[in-house]
Amino acid sequence: MDHQDDRAVEPPEMRWDGWGDFDRATELPRAVRALLPLMLGRVHRPEHAPGIEHVEVDETRLTEADLTAFRTVVGEAHVSLDPQLRLRRAAGRSTPDLLRRRDRHQPAPDAVVRPADHAEVRELLGIAAQRGIAVVPFGGGTSVVGGVDPDAGAHRAVIALDLARLSGLISLDEISGEAVLLAGTRAPEAERLLAAHGFELGHYPQSFRYASIGGFAATRSSGQNSAGYGRFETMVTGIRMVTPTGDLDLGRAPGSAAGPDLMRLMLGSEGVFGVITAVRVRVHRVPVDRIVESWTFPDFETGAAALREVVQRAGGATVIRLSDEAETGVSLAQIGKIGRVLAKGASAVTVFEGEDVEHRRERTAALITAAGGTSAGRTAAEDWARTRFDGPYLRDALLDAGVFCETLETATTWSNLHALRAAVTAALKDGFADAGAKSFIMCHVSHVYPTGASLYFTVLAGIKNDRPGTWDIIKHRVGDAIMAAGGTITHHHAIGRDHAPWLTDEIGETGIRILRAVKRELDPHGIMNPGVLIPDEPRHG
Amino acid sequence: MDHQDDRAVEPPEMRWDGWGDFDRATELPRAVRALLPLMLGRVHRPEHAPGIEHVEVDETRLTEADLTAFRTVVGEAHVSLDPQLRLRRAAGRSTPDLLRRRDRHQPAPDAVVRPADHAEVRELLGIAAQRGIAVVPFGGGTSVVGGVDPDAGAHRAVIALDLARLSGLISLDEISGEAVLLAGTRAPEAERLLAAHGFELGHYPQSFRYASIGGFAATRSSGQNSAGYGRFETMVTGIRMVTPTGDLDLGRAPGSAAGPDLMRLMLGSEGVFGVITAVRVRVHRVPVDRIVESWTFPDFETGAAALREVVQRAGGATVIRLSDEAETGVSLAQIGKIGRVLAKGASAVTVFEGEDVEHRRERTAALITAAGGTSAGRTAAEDWARTRFDGPYLRDALLDAGVFCETLETATTWSNLHALRAAVTAALKDGFADAGAKSFIMCHVSHVYPTGASLYFTVLAGIKNDRPGTWDIIKHRVGDAIMAAGGTITHHHAIGRDHAPWLTDEIGETGIRILRAVKRELDPHGIMNPGVLIPDEPRHG
Repeated sequence: MDHQDDRAVEPPEMRWDGWGDFDRATELPRAVRALLPLMLGRVHRPEHAPGIEHVEVDETRLTEADLTAFRTVVGEAHVSLDPQLRLRRAAGRSTPDLLRRRDRHQPAPDAVVRPADHAEVRELLGIAAQRGIAVVPFGGGTSVVGGVDPDAGAHRAVIALDLARLSGLISLDEISGEAVLLAGTRAPEAERLLAAHGFELGHYPQSFRYASIGGFAATRSSGQNSAGYGRFETMVTGIRMVTPTGDLDLGRAPGSAAGPDLMRLMLGSEGVFGVITAVRVRVHRVPVDRIVESWTFPDFETGAAALREVVQRAGGATVIRLSDEAETGVSLAQIGKIGRVLAKGASAVTVFEGEDVEHRRERTAALITAAGGTSAGRTAAEDWARTRFDGPYLRDALLDAGVFCETLETATTWSNLHALRAAVTAALKDGFADAGAKSFIMCHVSHVYPTGASLYFTVLAGIKNDRPGTWDIIKHRVGDAIMAAGGTITHHHAIGRDHAPWLTDEIGETGIRILRAVKRELDPHGIMNPGVLIPDEPRHG
Repeated sequence: MDHQDDRAVEPPEMRWDGWGDFDRATELPRAVRALLPLMLGRVHRPEHAPGIEHVEVDETRLTEADLTAFRTVVGEAHVSLDPQLRLRRAAGRSTPDLLRRRDRHQPAPDAVVRPADHAEVRELLGIAAQRGIAVVPFGGGTSVVGGVDPDAGAHRAVIALDLARLSGLISLDEISGEAVLLAGTRAPEAERLLAAHGFELGHYPQSFRYASIGGFAATRSSGQNSAGYGRFETMVTGIRMVTPTGDLDLGRAPGSAAGPDLMRLMLGSEGVFGVITAVRVRVHRVPVDRIVESWTFPDFETGAAALREVVQRAGGATVIRLSDEAETGVSLAQIGKIGRVLAKGASAVTVFEGEDVEHRRERTAALITAAGGTSAGRTAAEDWARTRFDGPYLRDALLDAGVFCETLETATTWSNLHALRAAVTAALKDGFADAGAKSFIMCHVSHVYPTGASLYFTVLAGIKNDRPGTWDIIKHRVGDAIMAAGGTITHHHAIGRDHAPWLTDEIGETGIRILRAVKRELDPHGIMNPGVLIPDEPRHG
């Protein structure tokens, strides 16, 4: 390998108050604009938000001595107090995050610190622990659960530890199909670097264009090709990590029985135990053949039964996803097929990539057809594939038009899927109704397993965007409904701050005690990402 | 489901001083007997071992108050002080375990306690913690790493917590393909109960006939069908567990991003955090179609490259395994084909089960053939399938004949496979040579992954069986060689007591600190399986 070629380029800076690249921002499609009043009633366009240069942030709470200590490690250029950069490292991209971007005064980390490598991360954590400064690891900033908020916790200040400089392909073992990537490498950059050698990682969550490899690992991400290549945690074969009290280098072999798999304890740790600095991942040859196809079913239930057959009996799809009737209608509207919007039915997409695609497609098609599905050609599937990362742009356009738009997701067994979907739908619908707002709820299955599947909901509502408190209340009702109906509080968005209230329901009191014990051991001063993942200690007395 | 039918029958009692059922004990095949002097020189038949009724065990150290407390929970009939039963629950089945069975005086747990259910396990752990009595969870007793030795640690006594009564199929979700089995259910019983409903678990390690479902979970077991159905840890979708300080109920959904996967921290915990009482597993319809086939390769290296192609590109085999030249020769000798023993070459077996077997076989066959393999018909593969659980009987026969025989295993990436195999082979060969003994080493690959494979070694040697210290020294050399060559200290045998010295090399000092922190939190008195998994605390001063 020529290491010159394997160094990553500087990652793109995302729009600070919305998704992605401002130049890609989209207008609401005409047909969607026409549908909105029917679905939601009259909505009010929000006031114009302030530009980043007009937002106030507090002065840094770091002392000159703190700053000198950090600068000694990373160099002057990589400790920034610039208010705009601090604002850019102050939040993820949930809808509440974006609505808070309209405030005059916003929280921000006390500095943005950009280490160059593993050793610098280790030194920075040592300084932060010694000086009582909280540390929020920052990758792509695509969290939708409050995972990167600049919360100092019990400490006097907080820094955003920006991992952008830890970027690049360190090694590639072509025989074993393993690559080591630095944690700050953005996903498109990782794919570019791998593709230069003929390999692909194949992890394509909706956040793909901005998210980082370390972020995928820290949040147990799952991508749109998960049917083919698995959840990110199953792609990872090793991690390197710095904790405030020692390094970890985990994943010695493709299969091992050497005690509990501690790598799996660090995957999903969301920065509260330490900082992942490098990830070893399973990679495959860039697929040559590809078949995309769309399908229609009389209803969502029939479609779900077909997906279940496929994953339990064939298992050969790279992508397989099913939209409910509402999402199917809106998707058609988006691409201008307004005439077909009112057609009943649920649509699905299959993609087969790699080896033996014709045969895999045939077996899957036979199962889908037997289960009541009908092939609908390539067009809709190609549309999905072309726009697969663009959902967040549409949300920006909706928010600008005064429509509340948010997503949430869960998963459960096949036998519990429809009960869970009904419970979540009811909690959303009733929650908005109680707030005096109409809502429109769409749902899809995008990740399938032999034993069950994910459910991903998109909700549009006619609540005023200046009342984020309304959503907080509804989100709590939905979270409670998910737990009561036997779902997981999150299938791939992670816990962050927003899902922390349900983690005790998810893993039990004993599970929480385990997380706290590991946290105390690795991060005794509690400097790592305060407020994320582990619920606050119950107050006594 | 009719729960009457889903209750398990009493598990079979294994021969106390060897493998399995005494009635199945085998003679050494003539051809092997003929080969042994050529391979190992003259060996000495050991003295006859004492019958179980002649072995001395210490009096129980439990007080009447202790016994009363245990009896109050499980009833008088389920607290046994019988010396023979205590001896039967005193050891696993490693070769050193079996050699120690020849001693006049042997260690034994102070009592064998048999709880009926989860609640009784919880009460028993409470009593044990309060009274300072160590607890060794006992499933099938098939550990080959000292995982069930009756070690009281710092405590005044130790009980074997025999889980045989926690046996049965609790529920089966035919839609989702999930079954809940009690932890003490033996594997054949689990398959019998599932088969009555048309389902199969499909986990077939060599210990299959005696091992328990809870044991599989506690040790991260891997079965011979792992290419098709995965390691046991990937079959598990939920566990229920009692720790001395609280219960755990983990695994809410088929996919989740709700923080670290704590279930994976409990899988492989080998009884040191608590007792697994029930396991939810993924199951599939009993496969109807099956194709078995054997293959020959000019050498092991060519065969390994073929297996790599198959797992990286086709991925459809249920079983795929490769024996090196030595193992191929002995296998042929065993089945009486002595004339072919000296034929050079490595042999492989493929099995395809379930759906679409013809196509899967064709694709795999094409890749194997292109990689230099030749189909060798069904016979050898059928022989393997018929005798797949019988290896330990052959070991008993060898030990009776005075031949030392033991197995060990590791795993690494494809690119490192041959270097690791060479290092282990050299450590074994040199170790025995330094002890003045000839040795004969066989190796196979039986578990494949996209990124690497396992290596399983069987060694025969002409050392006297009354000198187990010789093996200890060699085992240490081999362990060191495995770590130096980048392997894992165990691919599927687990850590137990025998591999604990290398766990620090495997997961690092920080990893050990994590395990100790979890142990302190869940088991503050350290009653659970002392001496297993976690290396002894370093002594200070």
